[in-house]
This record gives sequence, C-alpha cells and structure tokens, in this order.
Amino acid sequence: MGPEELRKLLEGVQTEQISVDRALEQLRRLPYEDLGYAKIDHHRHLRKGFPEVIYCQGKTVDQVAQIFHRLCQASQGNILGTRATEEMFGAAKELVPEAEYDPTARMILRRSDSTPRRGMVCVCSAGTADLPVAEEAALTCELMGNRVERIYDTGVAGIHRILDQTEKLARANVVIVVAGMEGALPSVVGGLVDKPVIAVPTSVGYGASFNGLAALLGMLNSCASGVTVVNIDNGFGAGYAAGLINKLAGDKQ
Amino acid sequence: MGPEELRKLLEGVQTEQISVDRALEQLRRLPYEDLGYAKIDHHRHLRKGFPEVIYCQGKTVDQVAQIFHRLCQASQGNILGTRATEEMFGAAKELVPEAEYDPTARMILRRSDSTPRRGMVCVCSAGTADLPVAEEAALTCELMGNRVERIYDTGVAGIHRILDQTEKLARANVVIVVAGMEGALPSVVGGLVDKPVIAVPTSVGYGASFNGLAALLGMLNSCASGVTVVNIDNGFGAGYAAGLINKLAGDKQ
Amino acid sequence: MGPEELRKLLEGVQTEQISVDRALEQLRRLPYEDLGYAKIDHHRHLRKGFPEVIYCQGKTVDQVAQIFHRLCQASQGNILGTRATEEMFGAAKELVPEAEYDPTARMILRRSDSTPRRGMVCVCSAGTADLPVAEEAALTCELMGNRVERIYDTGVAGIHRILDQTEKLARANVVIVVAGMEGALPSVVGGLVDKPVIAVPTSVGYGASFNGLAALLGMLNSCASGVTVVNIDNGFGAGYAAGLINKLAGDKQ
Amino acid sequence: MGPEELRKLLEGVQTEQISVDRALEQLRRLPYEDLGYAKIDHHRHLRKGFPEVIYCQGKTVDQVAQIFHRLCQASQGNILGTRATEEMFGAAKELVPEAEYDPTARMILRRSDSTPRRGMVCVCSAGTADLPVAEEAALTCELMGNRVERIYDTGVAGIHRILDQTEKLARANVVIVVAGMEGALPSVVGGLVDKPVIAVPTSVGYGASFNGLAALLGMLNSCASGVTVVNIDNGFGAGYAAGLINKLAGDKQ
Amino acid sequence: MGPEELRKLLEGVQTEQISVDRALEQLRRLPYEDLGYAKIDHHRHLRKGFPEVIYCQGKTVDQVAQIFHRLCQASQGNILGTRATEEMFGAAKELVPEAEYDPTARMILRRSDSTPRRGMVCVCSAGTADLPVAEEAALTCELMGNRVERIYDTGVAGIHRILDQTEKLARANVVIVVAGMEGALPSVVGGLVDKPVIAVPTSVGYGASFNGLAALLGMLNSCASGVTVVNIDNGFGAGYAAGLINKLAGDKQ
Amino acid sequence: MGPEELRKLLEGVQTEQISVDRALEQLRRLPYEDLGYAKIDHHRHLRKGFPEVIYCQGKTVDQVAQIFHRLCQASQGNILGTRATEEMFGAAKELVPEAEYDPTARMILRRSDSTPRRGMVCVCSAGTADLPVAEEAALTCELMGNRVERIYDTGVAGIHRILDQTEKLARANVVIVVAGMEGALPSVVGGLVDKPVIAVPTSVGYGASFNGLAALLGMLNSCASGVTVVNIDNGFGAGYAAGLINKLAGDKQ
Amino acid sequence: MGPEELRKLLEGVQTEQISVDRALEQLRRLPYEDLGYAKIDHHRHLRKGFPEVIYCQGKTVDQVAQIFHRLCQASQGNILGTRATEEMFGAAKELVPEAEYDPTARMILRRSDSTPRRGMVCVCSAGTADLPVAEEAALTCELMGNRVERIYDTGVAGIHRILDQTEKLARANVVIVVAGMEGALPSVVGGLVDKPVIAVPTSVGYGASFNGLAALLGMLNSCASGVTVVNIDNGFGAGYAAGLINKLAGDKQ
Amino acid sequence: MGPEELRKLLEGVQTEQISVDRALEQLRRLPYEDLGYAKIDHHRHLRKGFPEVIYCQGKTVDQVAQIFHRLCQASQGNILGTRATEEMFGAAKELVPEAEYDPTARMILRRSDSTPRRGMVCVCSAGTADLPVAEEAALTCELMGNRVERIYDTGVAGIHRILDQTEKLARANVVIVVAGMEGALPSVVGGLVDKPVIAVPTSVGYGASFNGLAALLGMLNSCASGVTVVNIDNGFGAGYAAGLINKLAGDKQ
Repeated sequence: MGPEELRKLLEGVQTEQISVDRALEQLRRLPYEDLGYAKIDHHRHLRKGFPEVIYCQGKTVDQVAQIFHRLCQASQGNILGTRATEEMFGAAKELVPEAEYDPTARMILRRSDSTPRRGMVCVCSAGTADLPVAEEAALTCELMGNRVERIYDTGVAGIHRILDQTEKLARANVVIVVAGMEGALPSVVGGLVDKPVIAVPTSVGYGASFNGLAALLGMLNSCASGVTVVNIDNGFGAGYAAGLINKLAGDKQ
Repeated sequence: MGPEELRKLLEGVQTEQISVDRALEQLRRLPYEDLGYAKIDHHRHLRKGFPEVIYCQGKTVDQVAQIFHRLCQASQGNILGTRATEEMFGAAKELVPEAEYDPTARMILRRSDSTPRRGMVCVCSAGTADLPVAEEAALTCELMGNRVERIYDTGVAGIHRILDQTEKLARANVVIVVAGMEGALPSVVGGLVDKPVIAVPTSVGYGASFNGLAALLGMLNSCASGVTVVNIDNGFGAGYAAGLINKLAGDKQ
Repeated sequence: MGPEELRKLLEGVQTEQISVDRALEQLRRLPYEDLGYAKIDHHRHLRKGFPEVIYCQGKTVDQVAQIFHRLCQASQGNILGTRATEEMFGAAKELVPEAEYDPTARMILRRSDSTPRRGMVCVCSAGTADLPVAEEAALTCELMGNRVERIYDTGVAGIHRILDQTEKLARANVVIVVAGMEGALPSVVGGLVDKPVIAVPTSVGYGASFNGLAALLGMLNSCASGVTVVNIDNGFGAGYAAGLINKLAGDKQ
Repeated sequence: MGPEELRKLLEGVQTEQISVDRALEQLRRLPYEDLGYAKIDHHRHLRKGFPEVIYCQGKTVDQVAQIFHRLCQASQGNILGTRATEEMFGAAKELVPEAEYDPTARMILRRSDSTPRRGMVCVCSAGTADLPVAEEAALTCELMGNRVERIYDTGVAGIHRILDQTEKLARANVVIVVAGMEGALPSVVGGLVDKPVIAVPTSVGYGASFNGLAALLGMLNSCASGVTVVNIDNGFGAGYAAGLINKLAGDKQ
Repeated sequence: MGPEELRKLLEGVQTEQISVDRALEQLRRLPYEDLGYAKIDHHRHLRKGFPEVIYCQGKTVDQVAQIFHRLCQASQGNILGTRATEEMFGAAKELVPEAEYDPTARMILRRSDSTPRRGMVCVCSAGTADLPVAEEAALTCELMGNRVERIYDTGVAGIHRILDQTEKLARANVVIVVAGMEGALPSVVGGLVDKPVIAVPTSVGYGASFNGLAALLGMLNSCASGVTVVNIDNGFGAGYAAGLINKLAGDKQ
Repeated sequence: MGPEELRKLLEGVQTEQISVDRALEQLRRLPYEDLGYAKIDHHRHLRKGFPEVIYCQGKTVDQVAQIFHRLCQASQGNILGTRATEEMFGAAKELVPEAEYDPTARMILRRSDSTPRRGMVCVCSAGTADLPVAEEAALTCELMGNRVERIYDTGVAGIHRILDQTEKLARANVVIVVAGMEGALPSVVGGLVDKPVIAVPTSVGYGASFNGLAALLGMLNSCASGVTVVNIDNGFGAGYAAGLINKLAGDKQ
Repeated sequence: MGPEELRKLLEGVQTEQISVDRALEQLRRLPYEDLGYAKIDHHRHLRKGFPEVIYCQGKTVDQVAQIFHRLCQASQGNILGTRATEEMFGAAKELVPEAEYDPTARMILRRSDSTPRRGMVCVCSAGTADLPVAEEAALTCELMGNRVERIYDTGVAGIHRILDQTEKLARANVVIVVAGMEGALPSVVGGLVDKPVIAVPTSVGYGASFNGLAALLGMLNSCASGVTVVNIDNGFGAGYAAGLINKLAGDKQ
Repeated sequence: MGPEELRKLLEGVQTEQISVDRALEQLRRLPYEDLGYAKIDHHRHLRKGFPEVIYCQGKTVDQVAQIFHRLCQASQGNILGTRATEEMFGAAKELVPEAEYDPTARMILRRSDSTPRRGMVCVCSAGTADLPVAEEAALTCELMGNRVERIYDTGVAGIHRILDQTEKLARANVVIVVAGMEGALPSVVGGLVDKPVIAVPTSVGYGASFNGLAALLGMLNSCASGVTVVNIDNGFGAGYAAGLINKLAGDKQ
C-alpha cells in the first residue's frame, strides 16, 4: 500500500465512504503480512518510498510466486523480483498475468505506467560481460521513476571510449559504474565528474579476480573522491541508491 | 583557483584590468603544478567543485607542508589535509599561519568562512572508539558547506538509542553511518529512512574483526536498500560523497 | 542404549531375569560398535544424554542406511540423520520402516513419542532463504525434548518486525538466531533479551557474503553480550547446544 | 541503576518518602546518559540483568575514567572495564578510589561483595600463554555471581591431563574452554561432558595460526556437539554467556 | 626400469648375452621418455626408489592410458595412477589387461606380487567420510611394500575410541592421521606415540571448514611434537612419505 | 583496420582514387564501432600493433560470433577469440567460414598467412595438465608473428628435465613459464637465463593450491631476478607480452 | 625423569636402597607437576622419548625461568626452551647456572653431554635470512642426539649451488629444507633424494609473501613425493620430527 | 667477476702474463664463495649479465657489509644493496669507502661510471607516497645501464595528467608503472602504448588495500594487454626485468 492509497483510504473514512471496520481490516495488514515463511513488509512503501523488492535467489519457486502475487495485490506501483529464473517467472505469471520478464537483468516485474521519469542517472559498464548487472541497475532505476542513460563497454584499456562520453556524464545527477576484472573504471569516471558515483564490482573475470574480489577491493580503494561501492554483482542495490539520490535533485538536470 | 576566481580573472581580461600576458601566466598553472614529487591539481576545483584534498599519510612532513602551502596560495576556499600528524601540522603552520588542526579527526585545515552551510547531513556512529572516523566525515562535510547533525554511540545492541533518533534522521538528506565490529548499524538505519545511507566500516574491534574486514563485509551485504559503502576508516570519502549528494538537494531540507 | 535401558538391564541382572552372559553380550557393544568404516558410539547416549546423530553428508547411501538402522536397533529414543538426501532416506526407510523425512530441514528421523517437551527455545530467522537452517535447528531442539517457538523472516532492515516479538523472546530460556548476508540480527536480539543467544550464520547471500563468511564474522564481532556462534549453516549444532542449555533451566519457563 | 535500586525507588514513592519530582529526576537518566562521545546505557542492568561493561580499548584514558565513574555512581553492583591499561586504571582510581585492577585479565573493577556465588562454571585453558584470556573469562563469571573452577594448561598433546579432570568437568553447569594454536581442546572436552561448552580461540601461536584464525576455525568445525564459539581472545564474552547459562540452572549443581 | 632390471641389463652386457647396441637402445630411454605432452621419468625408480606415479586429474583419458601403458612396459614393479576416474581405468585396462581399480581410493594399479611387506605403518581416520583419502594413503603404502594397520572412525569427540588403540599405535614405525573438520586427531595421536606422525587434512566438512582449510591450519599448529603435514586430501603424499620413513626402520617393528 | 590498410586508404585519397566522402565513411569507424552491447576497438591495431582480441567467456554465443565477424571484416590480419567454446566456434564459423578452432588452447582464430615469424619465444610448462594454458600462450605468440619453441612437462621435481634444455632456453629472447601446484619452475628457469621470464600460474592442483593461488604467490615471490607474472591461467596475456618483448629484439636471435 | 632414571629408581627399590615411601614421593610427580599456571609433563620423557620442551613465547619471564628450573631438576637429559629472549635466558641462568643461550636460534639450553650422536640429518636453507629457523632445527636435532650436516644459502635461483651438494644430501637419513619467499627448494631437493624431506616455510619475504603464506602453500603443493611440511618458522618442529625419523634408522647411515 | 674481467684473465693466460696457478686460484671462486651464512654467487654476472644484488632485509648489519665488500672486490661493475638501512650503509662504507646511499630508494650502491646508458625505460608512479618504490625501480634501471624517464604523481583520478605524457610514453621501450590503492594506472597506460608494461603494486593505502593486495589483484586482472606484474613494493624486480627487456631493443629508441 503506497502513500497515495493510504491517503485515499483515510479520506474515504473521513467522508464515511469507507466504514471504520473495513479500514481497520486493510490497515491491519500495514506493518507486514505473515505468510509463515515470509513477512511481507507492505509498510515499506510508506517508510522507504518504494514497495518491498523480492530477492528471489534462495527462495522456492512457489514462495516467489506467492510473495509477488501479494505485493501486486497490495500496491498499484511497480513491483520487482530480482535474481529470478525463467521458472520463477512462469509461476508468477500464472498468478499475475501482466507480469513481465527481462532475461538479461533476470528480473520479474509488474510495470505501472503511471510513474513519470525524472532527472538523469547514467549507467556505465566496462565490458560486454557486465551487461546483466548493468541492466539490473538500469531497470531498477527506471522502475523507480528515473530517466536512465546507458554507456556500455567503455573499459579503461581504451580510455578514449569513456573520454568521448564526458558530456553525457556531465548531464547526470548520479553515475553508476559497473566493472569486473580490475574494476578501474569508477576511478576514471570519478575523476571526470562532480557528482556522486556508485561503483558496482562484478564477478566477471577469472583466476585472481576471485569472483569479483579484485574489482571490489579496487573500487573501495579508489583514489577518486565521491565514489561509494555496493556488493559484487549488486546492480539492484546500486540502482536503488542512485534512485534515492536522483530524487533529491528533484527536476533539476 | 576556484570557479569564482576564474570568473574574476576573465572579467579582468574583458575589462582590460588584467593584461593578457598576466592572465596567461596564471592560467598556465591551471591543469596542475609540478613539484617533482607531486602534481598539484589546481584544476580540480573547477572540475570537481572542491579543491584537491591532501592525503597526508605516506608523504614526508616537508611534502605535506609544501603542498598545503601551494594549495592555500592558489585558492581562497577551504583547504584540507587528512590523516595528518601533529608534526605535519607544525610544518604546515609555519608556511600557512592561519592553519588549524583537529586532533580527533587528524586533519589540518585552512578555513574560509565565506561558505554558507546548506541542507543536512546526519553522521551516526556506533561506538565511542569510532569517533575519529566519524569526526573526519563530519568535518569534511562542514568544510564542503553542508550542515551536519551528529548522533554518536548508538550501537545496535541498545537498539532504543538509535530508534529515539528517528526524527533527526528523517530530516537529513543523506545519512553517514560509522561502525566497527559487526557493522550492523547501517542496516538498521537504512531500514528507517528513505534517503541514501553511506556506510563507513572502521577498524575498531579485535580478533575476527580482522582490522575492519568484518564490518566492511557486513555493510556490503546489508539487507537494507539504499546503502553504499566506502573503504575501512575512510571518513573523508564518506563525507565527500555525502556533500555531493546533499548539494543535489539544494536548499531543500 | 539409553540410560533407561541400561538401568533395566542391570535390574534384570539383579533380579536374575537376565543371565550374566546375556548381559555381558549386550554390554560388550556399549563403547561402540565397529562397522569397519564407522564406529557407532552407542555409549554417547549415556555420556552425552542424547544418542549419536548421523552427519550424512560425505557418507555413501548405504553407509547412512546401515548406521541409521543400527542406531534404531540399539536405542528406543529419537534417532536423527542430518544433511540427508531423499535417496538416503529411501535406503534408510527400507531398513527402518517408521523412518520419516523432513525435506526443508533435510533430516531423516525416527521419532519416539515418549519424550515430553520442556522449557522454551525460540528460533528466529532473518529471511525466507534461511528456512532450511532454521528448521534444522528447530527440529533438532524438538527431538531433544524442548518446546520451540518459531519467529521467521524478521531481518533488521525492517526492525519493527523483530521489536514486535519482544514478548515472545522474553519467554524463551535461550534464543537461536539464524541469519545470512550481514548477519546483524543476533546483535539486535542479543540487546533485547537477558538470555543466552546462539547465532547461526548461513550461506545465504552472494558476492562479498563469501558463502556465509560475512555473516559469520559479523556474529563473532557482535557488540551484544551473551551471543555465541556456531559454524555456517550449522542448524543442528545450534539446536543441540540450545537443548543442553534449556535442559539446565528444568521446568522453569 | 539495578533492579533492586529501582524497586526501592518505586517503594519510596509509594510510601511518599521520595517525592515524585525527585523520582522523575532519577528515572530520567534511565534509558541512557549522554556524555557526548558516549551514551551510557544505565537501562542495561534492568534489561540484561547486568550493568553495562566498558570495553576500554580504543577509548581515551579520560573517556574510560569518566564512563567508569558514572557507572559506579549510578549502580551499587559490580562494575567492569575490560582490555584496560594500567594508565586507564590510574585515571579511574582517582575518580573511584575503591577501583581495583587485575593485571593478568587486564580488567578494572569495582567489586560489590553483596553478590552471592551460585552454580558452577568451569574454565579450562590449553596453555600457559592462554592465561590472560582465561582469567578475563573467569573474573567476568565471578563478578556476575557464579562459582568458578579453573583447570589450566591441559592441552590435548598430553591428553591425560584433561582426562584426569573429568570429574570436575562433570560438576559444572557450563564449561568455558580457552585454547590457541590448533584449538582442539573444546572438541575433546565437548565429547566428555553433557553440558554446553563455550569455546574461546586465542591469538596464541605463530605462523599459520594467523593470530588465532586457526583456533577459531578449528572450534567452529568441532565434531563435538554442544560447542559454541566466541571471538578470538574474547574471554569477557565467554564469561558473560556462561554466566547467563549458569543462572538458568539456578541453585542446582 | 627398476634397479634390479638395470643390474640384469649390465650383467647381460658383461656376459655378452646382450649386445652393446641393444643395451644402448634400452638405456637411451633412461632419463625420460618424451610423449610430447609428457616426459615419462623412467629414471625415477633408480633415483627415488619407486616408479613414477601418475597424477591423473587434469590429464585426458587418453593421456592417462598411454602414460600408464608406457610405465608398465618399462618396469616390472607396482604401477600407480591416483585420482583416476572409472573411465580412465577403462581406457588403461584396454592397454594393460592386468590393471585393477580401487573405487574408494580412486586408484588404477598394476600389482606386482614380488614385493614383500615390511615394518608397520598405521593409518587412522577421524570419520567415515575421510575413507577415500585414508584408503589412498593405505594403498600407496602397501604398494610400496609396507605393512599397514587401519584404524578408522576415531574422531576426538569420542576420545576413548582412539585411546583404546594405543597399543596398536605403539607398534607402528610411523602413523598417518587423516581428518577433516577441525583436524584435531593428529594432536591427540601425536601426544600418545613417540614416532613420526603424518597428518592429512581432508576437505570433509562445510561452512567454515573452507574445503579443508580449517583442518590444514589446525594440523600445522598442532601442539604435539613430531607431527608434519601434507596437502589437503593428499593421501598419496602421506602414504609415500610414510613408506620412505618405514623403509628407514628396516625390518624392525 | 591495420596500419597498412590505413596507409592505402590515405594514398587512395591522395591519388584521388577514393573520394573524400568514402574515406570519411571508412574513417568514421576508426575509433570504435558500437554494437550496443560492445564497442569494437578497430583503432587498437594502430594504437597497439595488434587487432583487438575477443575474450569470449561471459559473452553470449551470438555476441562472440558478431564481434568476431566484424573484426574479420575490418582487418586483414590474424583475428583471435580466447576462452571460446565449441559452440561459439560453430556460430562464428557460419559467419566467417575460414575460422578455425584449437580445442586444447580453446581459441577461435582466423589466420592470415602473410605474417612472417621472427625472433624466438620459448614456452615451458611444468606438467601435462598445464597444456591448455601453455598452448594458449604459444598460439597467441605465433599469431602475433613470433617463432615459438615448446618445452613441456619439465617440473622441478625432476630437475634434470629442465637442465637438459638450457641450450634451447638460451636461444630465446623471452621465456614463458607455465606451472600450477607450487609454481617453482619460473624461479629455476629465471636463474638459468639472462632474458626476461614471464611466469603464468595455472589452476592445476587441489587442496591448498586454492585454484592457482599457491602458484601465483610462489611466482610473485620468486627469488630469481627478471621474472614478471600474469594472472592465473592467463596464457593469452603472457603470449601477448612476450610478443611485444620479442618484437623489440627485432631479427636478433 | 627419563627412562634411565626411572629404571634406577625401581632397581633401588628392588635392592632396598630406596625406601618405598621415598620412591612413591618421586613417582607421584610422574604424570605432571602443577605450578598453577602450568602443568609440567615430566611423564613426556617416558612417553615420547624426549623431555618436555618449553615454548617460551607468550609466557612471562618468570614463568619461563621456573618451568626451565623444574625440568632441569627432574631430568638429567638435555633441556630446551625455544623462542626465548635474552631476558628470559638471564632469569633462567640465575636458577640454572649451567644454562646456555644460542642467539641465532633464540634457544635456552642445558646440555647433557652424555648423548652420543647417531645417523645423519641434513639441514638446508635457501637464504641467509632463513638462518634463525634453520639453526633452531639443527640445534634441536643435535640435542636429541642426531648428527647434523648444514647446507646453507642454496636458493633455487642459483640451482648449481644445491646440485653441488647432491652427495651430502644422499648420505642423510632425512633432510630438513628451510625456505622463505616462494619456498621452492623442498621440491628440488625432494626430486634429488629418496629420503623423507621435511619442509619449513619461513616468514622471510615481503609483500605477497604474506608473512610466509606463499612459502607454506608452495611447500604443501610440492610436486615432489616424500615432502611433508611444518608450520611457518617452526624450526623446532622440523628438527623434532627429523630426530624421530633418524632414530628409526638406528645406526645405519 | 664480470665477463670482461674473465676475458682478460683468459687472455693473460694465453699470453702467459698470468700463470695457470694464479688463474686457477681466481677461477676457483667462480661458482660461488662460501661465507658460511651466505654463498656469494660471483658466477651470476656471467650467467645473468649483472652481478648478484644483495637483498639486505633480514640480514644482519654485519652480513650486509661483508657481502657487499666481497662483491665489490670481485667485480668492477655497479654493486647494489636493496632495502638497506642507514646503519647497514654505515657498516658497508667502512669497508667500501666509495659506497653511496640513496635514502628514498633505500639502496646502498657502488657506482662504476664505465656503463653507458642505452635505450629508454619510462617509470610512472600514481602518487607521491609511491616514490620510494618508483625510485628503487628507476635507480636499478640506471645502474644496469638504461636511460630512464620519470613521470611521477599521475593517478587515474586526474586522467589528464597521464594523457599529457603520451608522447614521452611512446618513446620508451618498456614502461614501469608503480601504483598503490586501487592500482588502476597500469591498465590506462597499457591501453596507450604498444610496448611491454611492468606493473608494480605498492603497499600505499589503508583499510581494504590490505597492504597492497588490492593493487596487486587489480594489476593481475588488468584488461590491458601486455601488462605483467611483480611483487608488492618490488621496485628492484621491475627495474631488473625492464633492464633485460630494454637491452633486447639494443640501441633502438
């Protein structure tokens, strides 16, 4: 239940269109709804400004479908499931026919087109193999109501590829930089812009990349100011944080 | 040379108060000034919106003093040296008499009072031993022109201490959370606010804290959305990023 | 052979209902029974108060079935096999028809209903994906004769979910807290109760969770007093230790 | 303020010996007292059954002395400061003349002799170099009102040294086992008793002990049931948890 | 070509039963035989006292079969292939019909019954899941001509199981101890005997066992004197080293 | 587009055989060609002396085929795809019929026979299981126009195998040494030659090899001068660097 | 009390030269003598063939001196204290005037010249900085009654230095190889001899040597058969194990 | 003894100016000279083209001075001691009065001005704190007879600082890149030049730099081709390898 719906509910009570009992029934679910294996946090939309997002990995196909269903019932906004398999999507679609699936970003989503896009988040990635994480970030941003500019495959070994994009970078309120291997791109981008940069290390690489550890450490030690870091492959987290920051900028761009 | 000074210089040329030759001389130093052992990036104020900051650790006392001196000469704004010893401060003060030292934050600074404070950054810390890092963050924020609210010693083992501060947290545009040991505070704070949270792990702890690794990993794996992370003990980095974010919010608070 | 059975045997000898030779034969198996690849420790029930538990992982299907069978023959109490596959259960059921399988906890068990439940152990988990470990802990507790209260999906990012359960927590003699990712829940719970807390890190997470390392380190560095930790995903170990502690409390609750 | 003092305060109000205003003044400090750099959690005695304990490492000498002083003023019970230097003790003693110092356990303490000792906690250590950690555990237990039996220098390479102590071990409600190097002692002890065992890895060792990591991992992987683990060198944590467990057993021994 | 065969060849030359040319042809292969992808070290039997052993893992099925074949042709002694799959065995058997396979130890072998067994090596293992490694060690020892005594499933949590075997242990010239999880058994055994102990950590365990790292570190930090360690799961290496040591003891037992 | 082709284009413009418009069209692709998911760096041949090489792992089959195709169209030189599966090769061959596949080195290649071979690079490997990495290095060298001498299966445990090759080693301008397990071969080779040695650790090994970490650390700590190191299993990187070095030597050998 | 002294005591009882009471008094100390902070294991000489050795690190100066004194009183054999400082030696010498100190090996010792030297142990080291560890090994061997041959500074980067020593190596019953940095020497030596090799990694090195980890991993992954490993810098452990092995060989050399 | 001196010696013998006996005496020292604690490898100049270099760390002051002295006596070329303290230099100067000390590079050296400089090695460093390592590399290069161009303080966060130096970089035969923190500079430089790049990670940084591990991993995972890596802080190794490469290029520049 989003803030708009809550306001309507209370106005309905005020105008006596909704009985106190019915309102109570709906409000009782407010803090969270207990499915036994999961407490769905319907309250989050109010508290955090965006509905709860389902992290699907580690949940059973059935659990994912049920939680997705309940969230869709309880809110009119965009609903997201990250790290979802095609099988999970299949099960969710049976309960929520308008559900969609993005195979690159591995996301289940129910879009609500009412959200206008604001500001500008720029998503850069270093290599082609970083695409799934970059798209998870970009799609999360878009579903939270942000305009997104994608700049892909601009690794530092061909530095002119990113230098050519300086103008685009300058227009963004916040830049997400996705990179595996040595994870050097955020330092270069961080030196070019005067906006916050969110660095996302990916597990792309082999050997001494240690599944993204090299990129993670590189980004944490960035010599560029204004760079903060999220977990390896955490495109969603970067997108979410970028969305919160872009929202602060309001309609400025 | 900050943007204001640059504008004045160009206006001086326009109005013929400054000769083209003298302007050229001053502009030649623009990109950077080479001291042999260091290239001072005077350009950074223009490019990044804040003068270069000296990371003093690993530099000799003399190098710190010289670089601090040159930066003070070239800019009217606030100048910062982080991780500075008292001895470095002593040498800097001889060249820049108005230099000050903050022993908790271990910073040398030359304050320029012209900067008005805007918005609100909240700096929380989990324990008393986290103070030096928290103060490094807070002071960096203030010198970049941000209003700062400090909430210290609010570790999660006494959860009511942070819950009592929910109202203050809600007023901030961005929250910095500093914690050592298990580093759990950012997750709790991240669940309470709908603003970006910057988590700073500290090396406070012993044994399996592995000099801050435990806190770092905890924060990277935070289950709260909107949390990004900087390097262990990197109060400056958190303060700088928070300043960039707060600036986006303009005068809103 | 449990303590009750041993007492009966000795009384049988005393009353001459059992010949010394037959008693000797039975007692000879006491210390352990050697299957070549395994020494079954029938003595453990006497020494530790609970029959040997089979850790099935790494054993062949046939070995699991044989050891389960022998333990069931030698004792009237509850018999447990942890980390068991369905295939292992199939083989065990052929030899022990009353065997049951719990697919969430991945346990084979032969229940003996004679055990009354005592005291109260509370099992909390942070997320839905932590269920298998939480259930392994809860089921172990129950089969050792403890009353169990389950509180699931109460991660710290929605802190009100756990604060709502303070009353339940207060009633327990010991609390087991199961969490993956940053593993912060035990610190919060440990700050709320004045009873021992056993923290179980899980391998739930990705990237810098390093298969549960982040949660493990977080729990070891907990700033809450009274928290002790078991191995990653070791629901059985937590359940067993909680059972020993709850037993000390006797019938108090 | 402990539960006994709180009861007296309320009875004083009831019998009108204490004015409501004076009571309010005292109760206002209840949740915590803010020293700026520290929030003293006077409430903890009520909530957790033992006053807040000062972890001195990382605090300044002055901070330690001030916090110790305030805790002593606010409570009649035993007050503890762990990981304290002699210098910290000196400063504390000036404010609290009855303060004592235990150089082996590195603890500052203010003893209140009113606490009777109950039950039995056994503290074993593997080697002579583990003594400081073992004594931190033992002293913590004693100050929380538990009887303590010490069994020191009983490493597994001379297994008869611990086997000789089986009887003593059997009398304890809970056993703390302190060991560095390979940390094998808790597994052996855990196999001998049917009580909870709390294992404390120490940083004693060199080379591949990696400052206690080897012992920590060994204890977490213990094949003995009923063993839980605390952080490397965390004698206080083990003592505190053991005290909570022993308290459950009441006067049984 | 073993030393016996070399002696015969030279005697054949001496007595003119073998032409110098034919002898040269055979001796030319002495240092090693180059298969392109592998240099077979036929010289090793002379230099090290045992023919080259094939480490099959990482080689193709065809490479294993060819190398096994060449070694069998060039020597009359026992020939060994470790870490072999059934498929590798199938291919080897086609070229060497008398080849055998031990599925527990995962070894291909061609036995030459001429080797008499000498001395005594004792192989202990902690748990049933350690069997494959223990058998790799035992079989290697036997094929090198050593008598072997197996003592399996004697983990330290039931310490009486190993104490019961003290007499057997005392008869061995060298003891191999195989253990996963916390790897504590070698310390206990090392304290009981006055002979060299070779510790073999196994990857048996989960979570913080980190695939055998916990056991490896435990064994390297053993407080018992006379314990040396081999790589995780390296049963062959332990068996080989034990064979060299037992050989030094000659026929003493 | 290689330097030769660029010269022809410009000469064509000079001689008016190519219109300025057509030249512009071709030059526009110079810096890179944007496929959306990838920016093909056609410029690299000019800048680095060798066309862009496709690192296939982590790309989809379709992406590999398309990028390979475009590179073949844009350049007449040798084109390489590393870490390619047979399936990727199949898709590439449909678009580029002259494509070949090397299953040991796991490379797709389009050979252009015009490149003469120069100088001498020696590729040594320690064991048979290191072949895929050694061949990746050797093939890369050859396709860059270098003569290659292979010396395989010469691990340090049979030191005479490498000492026998001293003469061959002495003829090389640069030596690549590929080794897994303890990675000691580069130190021995580095002590024998007065030429640069490039060490390639491989993931060959088990247990405490930690997927090549042991070999990597060994090589980084080599006591031999003149040894530099590349990532674990990075045969391509070693071959490429060796090619650059060998090129410096010109036709000297 | 060594086996010889025990025999004399019993013969004294048999011949009535020693009263039963006096014998009892002496035998009562047999298992161990409890100093409170340490249980001196006088029994070890009987059980393990060598008196208890004091690992001095982590003990106080006074504890070392007292334990050394008691061991000297209770046994006529050689007594050893390892990792001892000069200060510890000073305190020990006051109680045991015949005590000596070896500053390279950092050992306190009381020599008993009665032990004849037997067999041959060879101690090799890779570099000059490895000397303290090599000497700890050599001295331990000598005090246990073994003949020792030292071969120092023979690192693999100058392979001829060790190849020149092949003859000496061949005469030893067991070879100890001490090396830091990449730790490759044991693999080379292990390939040259047909005797057991004990590898001792040292913390000599910097950067990615990680205080001896690189050498440790290298040795554990040695491709040479017959190599076993002890802890980083554990010269004593290697010397002790070598002594046990050499003893098995009797007077053979 | 360098190759020139050896030639003179042999010519002296040929022309009978040097007696065979005297020549033998001198040649006997050729392979190495044994000081007991060190074997000085005088042969290395012949075998490797440069005299043995003393790695001073871990050697005693006296050992350093003696080895330095012997090397100076035996060769006319440049002699180097790395990681030397001022105290070591003092002792060396007493024996070799012409010895010099470079405090930034921490090197003792005896210069022989006869070496002409050839080719060009470029040494870049990222920050001022990387100077000691960069200077160790540069000085080593110069003493091996290479021309050196230094480009310091050009970290990637101000990317224009390195882009400005492209021309200088292009003139070098080989580029050494020294960087701490995230170690991203070698990737950027590697993308700009078509020459071999040797990357040197430094321990400059804090927190998650883990003493240079972050920079090391970053460099090993560089996405730029032609980059190889040496140990953390190993300026000498990089300089030596660069010297060997530059030598291959002959007088080309």
